[in-house]
Amino acid sequence: MTMSLSAELWPDVQPETARRLMLAGVESFARRGYHATTTRDIASAAGMSPAALYVHFPSKAALLFAISKYGHEQTLSLVESVVARETDPVERIRLLVEDFVAWHARRHTVARVVQYELHALPDEEFEIVAKLRRRIEQVVREVITEGAATGVFTVGDPHTAARAVLSLGVDVSRWYSERTRQTPKKLGQEYSELVLRMLGTKLS
Amino acid sequence: MTMSLSAELWPDVQPETARRLMLAGVESFARRGYHATTTRDIASAAGMSPAALYVHFPSKAALLFAISKYGHEQTLSLVESVVARETDPVERIRLLVEDFVAWHARRHTVARVVQYELHALPDEEFEIVAKLRRRIEQVVREVITEGAATGVFTVGDPHTAARAVLSLGVDVSRWYSERTRQTPKKLGQEYSELVLRMLGTKLS
Repeated sequence: MTMSLSAELWPDVQPETARRLMLAGVESFARRGYHATTTRDIASAAGMSPAALYVHFPSKAALLFAISKYGHEQTLSLVESVVARETDPVERIRLLVEDFVAWHARRHTVARVVQYELHALPDEEFEIVAKLRRRIEQVVREVITEGAATGVFTVGDPHTAARAVLSLGVDVSRWYSERTRQTPKKLGQEYSELVLRMLGTKLS
Repeated sequence: MTMSLSAELWPDVQPETARRLMLAGVESFARRGYHATTTRDIASAAGMSPAALYVHFPSKAALLFAISKYGHEQTLSLVESVVARETDPVERIRLLVEDFVAWHARRHTVARVVQYELHALPDEEFEIVAKLRRRIEQVVREVITEGAATGVFTVGDPHTAARAVLSLGVDVSRWYSERTRQTPKKLGQEYSELVLRMLGTKLS
């Protein structure tokens, strides 16, 4: 049994129809931008009627919100899971950057919509996503602050450092394409080395 | 005599009407995306008739091309000017990152259009901008390669390192806003320190 791309992207979303609409939304938004896409475009890309779309998402904004929320939940869960299974700050940052960068490379089309169409969200939905973003940044900042306290990292301002670390990962989704020679995993490893140096770690 | 914002942004573009249209284009594209913006929206934002717009730009794509081309020419000239006036690789990277980051912070709305609407350009115009991009990356890569050859930098792959350096700068335009506490200059300096470490330089 093969898994559909939409099931791979959003394993927790049910039913498959909702996932198919999210995939059609990602593809339409990535191609023409959020504002130029109509719910009719999305329904048609998913092979459905606009009425069928409204069963799952009451509006175009609700669909963008679902895509954006799940994307942020996935990246938050990825950084939290690294912190949960690793205690050494150096290994935490290494694995965290590897996973975060690889996610933005492997899921570059989804990531672009998640990262660049954020400001199209209505205020209330934006605030929910902004909260997830602050949490992601906080986890990274805490790992850096902890490493600085024990002397394995040397950083001026952990706030700037955390932002730069995440920035490197996010920007991968802007330029990564199917033609990029590095695999997502390899790129994540290379960026991990760069980030560890940026944090003043002596590499073994 | 005070200088208009559009004259400050595009000092080489003449006449003022063309600059006003570029500013209206930047604001409209940044707010609604390229595809959802009409030439009528832009003309109206510039306080002109669509006919007056066509005198300067034959199409919406021509306007995006002008914005994109000038943005890339400005950042290329900024990195080339640093290389021309400095010979030490460490100082070159330091000043280059300072200026590149500060430009993306100070001009964040223009930079967002320049960086994120690139794929809306027609093939021929895209190729002209892509050439400018490759030149910017090449200048940075050459400075890194030169520093690695003389031993002041230690990098695995200068290609990946150059991309990461530019990526940090580009991504500033995504998150920087008028509410950001760091000034563009201060942010540039902080990022310079991070980048010098990333390149394996011992900071004095």
